[in-house]
Amino acid sequence: MSTPQSKPPVVVTGGAGAIGTVLVHALADAGHAVRVIDNLSSGKRERLRDLEQLGRLTFHSQDLGRDDDLRPTFRGAGEVWHLAANPNISLGTQNPRIDLENGTLAMAHVLEAARQTDVRRVLFASSSVVYGMPTVFPTPESYGPLLPESQYGASKLASEALISAYCHSYGMRGWIFRFANIVGPGMTHGVIPDFLQKIRRDPNRLEVLGDGRQAKSYLWVTDCVAGMRRAEEASQEVVNVFNLGTEQQVPVRDIAQRVVAAFGGRARIEYTGGRQGWPGDIPLQLLSVSKILSLGWRPQYDSSTAVDMAIAAGRAELGI
Amino acid sequence: MSTPQSKPPVVVTGGAGAIGTVLVHALADAGHAVRVIDNLSSGKRERLRDLEQLGRLTFHSQDLGRDDDLRPTFRGAGEVWHLAANPNISLGTQNPRIDLENGTLAMAHVLEAARQTDVRRVLFASSSVVYGMPTVFPTPESYGPLLPESQYGASKLASEALISAYCHSYGMRGWIFRFANIVGPGMTHGVIPDFLQKIRRDPNRLEVLGDGRQAKSYLWVTDCVAGMRRAEEASQEVVNVFNLGTEQQVPVRDIAQRVVAAFGGRARIEYTGGRQGWPGDIPLQLLSVSKILSLGWRPQYDSSTAVDMAIAAGRAELGI
Repeated sequence: MSTPQSKPPVVVTGGAGAIGTVLVHALADAGHAVRVIDNLSSGKRERLRDLEQLGRLTFHSQDLGRDDDLRPTFRGAGEVWHLAANPNISLGTQNPRIDLENGTLAMAHVLEAARQTDVRRVLFASSSVVYGMPTVFPTPESYGPLLPESQYGASKLASEALISAYCHSYGMRGWIFRFANIVGPGMTHGVIPDFLQKIRRDPNRLEVLGDGRQAKSYLWVTDCVAGMRRAEEASQEVVNVFNLGTEQQVPVRDIAQRVVAAFGGRARIEYTGGRQGWPGDIPLQLLSVSKILSLGWRPQYDSSTAVDMAIAAGRAELGI
Repeated sequence: MSTPQSKPPVVVTGGAGAIGTVLVHALADAGHAVRVIDNLSSGKRERLRDLEQLGRLTFHSQDLGRDDDLRPTFRGAGEVWHLAANPNISLGTQNPRIDLENGTLAMAHVLEAARQTDVRRVLFASSSVVYGMPTVFPTPESYGPLLPESQYGASKLASEALISAYCHSYGMRGWIFRFANIVGPGMTHGVIPDFLQKIRRDPNRLEVLGDGRQAKSYLWVTDCVAGMRRAEEASQEVVNVFNLGTEQQVPVRDIAQRVVAAFGGRARIEYTGGRQGWPGDIPLQLLSVSKILSLGWRPQYDSSTAVDMAIAAGRAELGI
């Protein structure tokens, strides 16, 4: 059924998501058998059909936030990439239980399954939101204190803390990646899908949450995956923390203008006002990436190009 | 039943513990009605009998790690002091569920109860262990990355993250206190109770976990409580993070020698060796306390005096 594999199988949670799909294909191309765990709350299994049909991927419909027994899926694997998360930050503010379960408790369950099955390498998709509203830009990995402003951010920091404790207590090794805004095909959340969905509903106006001056860095998904894999290869501390992003910011106002221009320029841009787009929004984000750059990784696309590519990809998906 | 109160009631979790008892009495003396939540896993209710008999304290036997409904205890309170925790760090390493439930989930339940009952001030006993093994001494509140080495440390950092998210999302205000080693009467865990119990069992030898060169700062419990109350009064950010400790370290070797001397000097000190006393032990701890000192707080006792007082208090309690 499966092609011969020289490398140990890997577990990928959230492997049917927008970032997970790209990672899973990269890992399969590198010769790993891949076991994807996904509850399909936002992921799509058809993205993985090619690998499933080739017998190089098994799909496991499990819910990490509940007490599903993950051990059968973990047994014999060499490492676990934990990418599953609630992608909707605002939803977590409305109901804190969502990020507690799908963030913090999911991480605890993943780590406990890894410990019990002797899977000793854990790689985790964290986020720049662990920094809260930093006062230093670009923000280095050593920045503190870490005061996240959303339940999503709290669950990411709690997950980092759990990884660190597990690695130091049980002979495991961890890689923590604090993501800038990752963009690419198949994204369901974030400013670009939001703008595209709005302008499809009403081509004459585009509502922008906040004053439009929020400015963040954007990283194309393949660059993100390449960065994570480079860090795993080159950095072998007990716990390895890396920012992953580009060195440029794009203001939300610019993204709105580009989306409007792509639709003929007739939509009126309306700002709801305020520095934050929503409670928990971090209006300024620019990560120091000198640590990952020192390992030889270079993003292929800068923030501006990544935004343009994401607008194009989103339009194609929506058929607009 | 109760004396007239001009100040709003306060909730104190872990209020029957060694630090909680001192805090509760200070709050009652200041005119607050106090509601103590404690599962008595290590706390002792008789410490609170005086205030209960005066009608100034109500005791609530609730388990924060489970889904007990805390709202009736919270309703109408002005603030919650969250001190409850698993005091046994090694136990958490053996069973990670303990700190997940009694640390992270307990904090989530406390915050959710506070949010639902409109209690807008949260004060939390965190720990220097959130810093993991820091490379900067004395370690400032801005130190990062935060890589705790124990499940206990992970639960403290996860709790800090939750406080920050709740405060920023729901109009609450938080005070986070990262404790050095707090010593005083009634302590059940830590190096001094450990040594006293060992020498009582065998007056001829004292086993020291590690090489004895671990060096930490010690703060007497009344100084700790005074520091927290000063910070609450003087610091009014959305989230206020303070280290609380003294500016001197005492090596474990010195503590062992003092304990042996107190028992006539005949016990042989035996070191198990190794830099860490146990998995998750942080051998060097010295917090920068310039932030809390800038508010006018001064500890009454230095580390060395606090250690001597704790040895004396422990002897009296054990009747040795």
